[in-house]
Amino acid sequence: MSEKFSFSLNATDGMARTGAISTPRGAIRTPAFMPVGTSATVKAMMPESVRTTGADILLGNTYHLMLRPTAERIHRLGGLHKFMNWKRPILTDSGGFQVMSLAGLRKLTEEGVTFKSHIDGSKHALTPERSMEIQRLLGSDIVMCFDECPALPSDRDRIAESMRMSMRWAQRSRDAFGDRPGHALFGIMQGGLEPDLREESAESLKDIEFDGYAVGGLAVGEGQQSMFDCLDYAPNFLPKDKPRYLMGVGKPDDIVGAVKRGIDMMDCVLPSRSGRTGQVFTRYGVINIKNARHADDPRPLDEICSCPACSNYSRAYLHHVFRANEMISGMLLTWHNLTYFQNLMQEMRDAITAGSFKDWESNFNAVRAQGDVEPITNI
Amino acid sequence: MSEKFSFSLNATDGMARTGAISTPRGAIRTPAFMPVGTSATVKAMMPESVRTTGADILLGNTYHLMLRPTAERIHRLGGLHKFMNWKRPILTDSGGFQVMSLAGLRKLTEEGVTFKSHIDGSKHALTPERSMEIQRLLGSDIVMCFDECPALPSDRDRIAESMRMSMRWAQRSRDAFGDRPGHALFGIMQGGLEPDLREESAESLKDIEFDGYAVGGLAVGEGQQSMFDCLDYAPNFLPKDKPRYLMGVGKPDDIVGAVKRGIDMMDCVLPSRSGRTGQVFTRYGVINIKNARHADDPRPLDEICSCPACSNYSRAYLHHVFRANEMISGMLLTWHNLTYFQNLMQEMRDAITAGSFKDWESNFNAVRAQGDVEPITNI
Repeated sequence: MSEKFSFSLNATDGMARTGAISTPRGAIRTPAFMPVGTSATVKAMMPESVRTTGADILLGNTYHLMLRPTAERIHRLGGLHKFMNWKRPILTDSGGFQVMSLAGLRKLTEEGVTFKSHIDGSKHALTPERSMEIQRLLGSDIVMCFDECPALPSDRDRIAESMRMSMRWAQRSRDAFGDRPGHALFGIMQGGLEPDLREESAESLKDIEFDGYAVGGLAVGEGQQSMFDCLDYAPNFLPKDKPRYLMGVGKPDDIVGAVKRGIDMMDCVLPSRSGRTGQVFTRYGVINIKNARHADDPRPLDEICSCPACSNYSRAYLHHVFRANEMISGMLLTWHNLTYFQNLMQEMRDAITAGSFKDWESNFNAVRAQGDVEPITNI
Repeated sequence: MSEKFSFSLNATDGMARTGAISTPRGAIRTPAFMPVGTSATVKAMMPESVRTTGADILLGNTYHLMLRPTAERIHRLGGLHKFMNWKRPILTDSGGFQVMSLAGLRKLTEEGVTFKSHIDGSKHALTPERSMEIQRLLGSDIVMCFDECPALPSDRDRIAESMRMSMRWAQRSRDAFGDRPGHALFGIMQGGLEPDLREESAESLKDIEFDGYAVGGLAVGEGQQSMFDCLDYAPNFLPKDKPRYLMGVGKPDDIVGAVKRGIDMMDCVLPSRSGRTGQVFTRYGVINIKNARHADDPRPLDEICSCPACSNYSRAYLHHVFRANEMISGMLLTWHNLTYFQNLMQEMRDAITAGSFKDWESNFNAVRAQGDVEPITNI
């Protein structure tokens, strides 16, 4: 196992890239989808099961973990990997995004942000320095800079001002992170949907130098087309030889469009959250397992999927346990959805390696356009 | 695999017995503890995980399954084993007990019982004949007679009258069950805490002839001592060469006391229900994982337990995920509790085989009396 953090590209196809990130805790095949383990668990899953879906890396949420059970407690207990029984790489976000979306009574200054916990109302502060400290205490392999991410749409002056503060915070994050062999610090590009601001942000980050670069400030309400328009140019402002991470994305077609535009890493709660609400992803699109059409259906969700939900259970069973509010419903559907997302990444890695991404994408779209299999009618 | 249902005793120690029930779907080592899979799932568990805890047989609830997804639907889908992905034996109760505890607007007559579903208020009826039909549609390996079970305390006349109706229902159950090779029908003794009524009930059942006999009407509010007093004589009224099943029991010390008195099979929701509410069973007694004393405790629930919760996680983690209301809490604690219960059964089977049940029981009680390990104080 390499003791260094490094990234190597194996193949490109158009703007799409495939490669691997090496870390002391194992390799991350790119393009990579990171399941989200918000509170030290990927909801409804055992970590060994998450691994069997093909996940090389998880994302942990600094905001949630700093509040409960606290970074200091996790550190005393040997770090997040040991705590949650996940031995492979973990990326942690900086906490900034979730403070803005979840916490109460937020106050933002040049220094950082103060807020009240959504759990118990207790007062907390996050700064670039404190975010770096928390992520160090957690033992994160890939640490994210502390930034501010304005919701879109937002006016250009607000976007520019916010981006420039995030760039000052990026420098403070870099300074506070220090030199930690085997651990990586990623900068986060901001600038909304303004190409010149994106470029200015990228230049600032490249001057500071990071181990990887995130495209931040997308998937925050702008819509898929605007996101793709931004991804048509924004990744090009970033170094080719470092991983590019699109935060909080997304739906399968978002992911495909992002990979096509040169993104190497993504994360989203969608497969696990949807699994708990009965939304199922297959190559034919989305299934709502709650629908009565599944009640007598002996077929699997997808006959070519090898996950436990598809190997061992009918749609009728999955419909039943969802309706009965049984935990195994969330367990099985999450397992399936994570398998679908990881299979999607593997297919894209293979297609890029083979130089056939365009054909693969056409087929992906054509199969999805067919929609789910016809309902069973001969009951 | 034998195509017949049979029971053989391997050893006895005092009144305690160990042996095996042979069924076409596999052997059931006795004394056996049956986890409860109410709605076609042992809550919070995958069936293959239930099997790894050592369970040879599950219990399914006729009342729940007849209402949702219905026995007819499960039959169309290939039976309960296939539906819920549990290939080993399943025992189903008759539905009578849960109609009385869960359903609305019950009306009891000699014919049977009519009631309203607790799920949607729809009207249903259960009779001995309908209960046999439902259990056949489910594909149950061990079918229970339809009976009435009065709560205790209850007056003697009520107990006697109810018992005699249950005996008439037992004959109707036997007639309706017919001849089903490889499937067993168990009679259920009633008679409350009245020895002569218990004996009368046993004689009636023996006249009808069953493949096994349950001691019904206990664990319904009478308290442990009264239950044990009844078990001091009631099993002796039953044939020695057939399995004896104590329904709905129980806590670990209830189980030990029942095995000591000649019981071969038991079932209870306790290990799974407790797992979801943070109650943990270990050889030292009960742990409440919610308690603050566990928040910084790096130790496992029980250092000699080999379940995933004990092998891979600290008390601190289990405390955290319980507090955070994460599904993995119920998943891990249920897995642990079911492992504890199955290990307890294995220890008793070994002790009976070795002729050392009395010593084993003394040790069981002595270790429990120690209580949980001391809290960690050097944080």
